[in-house]
Amino acid sequence: MPTTDGRRLRGHRTRESVLEAAVATASTAGLDGLSLAQLATGLGISKSALFTHWPDKQTLQLAVIDQAAAQWADRIVRPALDGRHGLAALWAVQENRLAFYAAPVLPGRCFFVTAYTEFDDRPGPVQDRLRAQLVQWEAFQANLIRESITAGELRPETPVQLLAFELDALGQAVVTRARLLEADTVFAEARAALLARLRHWATRPDTLPAA
Amino acid sequence: MPTTDGRRLRGHRTRESVLEAAVATASTAGLDGLSLAQLATGLGISKSALFTHWPDKQTLQLAVIDQAAAQWADRIVRPALDGRHGLAALWAVQENRLAFYAAPVLPGRCFFVTAYTEFDDRPGPVQDRLRAQLVQWEAFQANLIRESITAGELRPETPVQLLAFELDALGQAVVTRARLLEADTVFAEARAALLARLRHWATRPDTLPAA
Repeated sequence: MPTTDGRRLRGHRTRESVLEAAVATASTAGLDGLSLAQLATGLGISKSALFTHWPDKQTLQLAVIDQAAAQWADRIVRPALDGRHGLAALWAVQENRLAFYAAPVLPGRCFFVTAYTEFDDRPGPVQDRLRAQLVQWEAFQANLIRESITAGELRPETPVQLLAFELDALGQAVVTRARLLEADTVFAEARAALLARLRHWATRPDTLPAA
Repeated sequence: MPTTDGRRLRGHRTRESVLEAAVATASTAGLDGLSLAQLATGLGISKSALFTHWPDKQTLQLAVIDQAAAQWADRIVRPALDGRHGLAALWAVQENRLAFYAAPVLPGRCFFVTAYTEFDDRPGPVQDRLRAQLVQWEAFQANLIRESITAGELRPETPVQLLAFELDALGQAVVTRARLLEADTVFAEARAALLARLRHWATRPDTLPAA
């Protein structure tokens, strides 16, 4: 709960805006590239105000992961679920993810791809929090696949875990390729590949875009 | 050409062994995590001997990329092509790649995934060299796909570039997931996904493993 004694962040420089800036920075520089001093300078606030909220780097890193997850939910998941279920929701998630990367909302396109690469070999609370996000994300996609099967939109023999793996792998592949190769081609390939996976298992492929 | 005046690296501490150690280090710490001082200490040689070969960090980074590409060719590509053509070679490449990651040959499993994530947003000679490797790798896979079509092993309508994208995306997805999730499951999913892509377009799926 923010107080007004000056030790807390106030006004539009809220806790959330600091964390949003940190997510953007970490999407290119990584979670280890975060510095309270740089964040404070960038936002024009005192470093001591930030220290009140995040007394050490790891506390900040964990909060930044949570913020990135909230942003993912706000920008990709929630709009996809708005008035949609099953296969339509599953496809909207893929389109929203590609649009999030294409914008790009974050300078490094994806906070999580950078953080996973950075922390996959560094056990500890940060890795645990990242793992929890990945597990939750894959479970979310698997649940939408199951919902689509139950609704008769995907065939009963659809391999739930495998399809969830494929969707995430194909979506994630855009992140580094879009800068190293021709971005429009990369996004078109990812969209075509994602669509082909869903159309393959769909009972009525015509309910999905043709290409 | 090495000389014997002591300023060059000699014996088993060859240029290549230094670069191999650097590829391993960079697979976790990134190309910016390389330090000539640390490499020298780790290998028990003088820093000045290393400076003779790589007077600055960028020269070292470029040499490390070339070494990583040579390792990829030696461990993944060349054994796959040994006595194989077309679809058999294409599948052997996928299996060798997964085996390279599973061993793991490198502590970070894949030098390139780490380096792409690190340099995709940093234009310059290092990014250019990495891009050239990615372009060459995708072209190599696309050529094997075309060869398989010409040989009648993949159907004529096989989408060459799209399949090359899918194969690389699915193989690459193992790298971070194998540490964050259950490794055996992740490798099994990647193998099944890769196999499904090739069996889908194969004129005789029975020439590929069933699962």
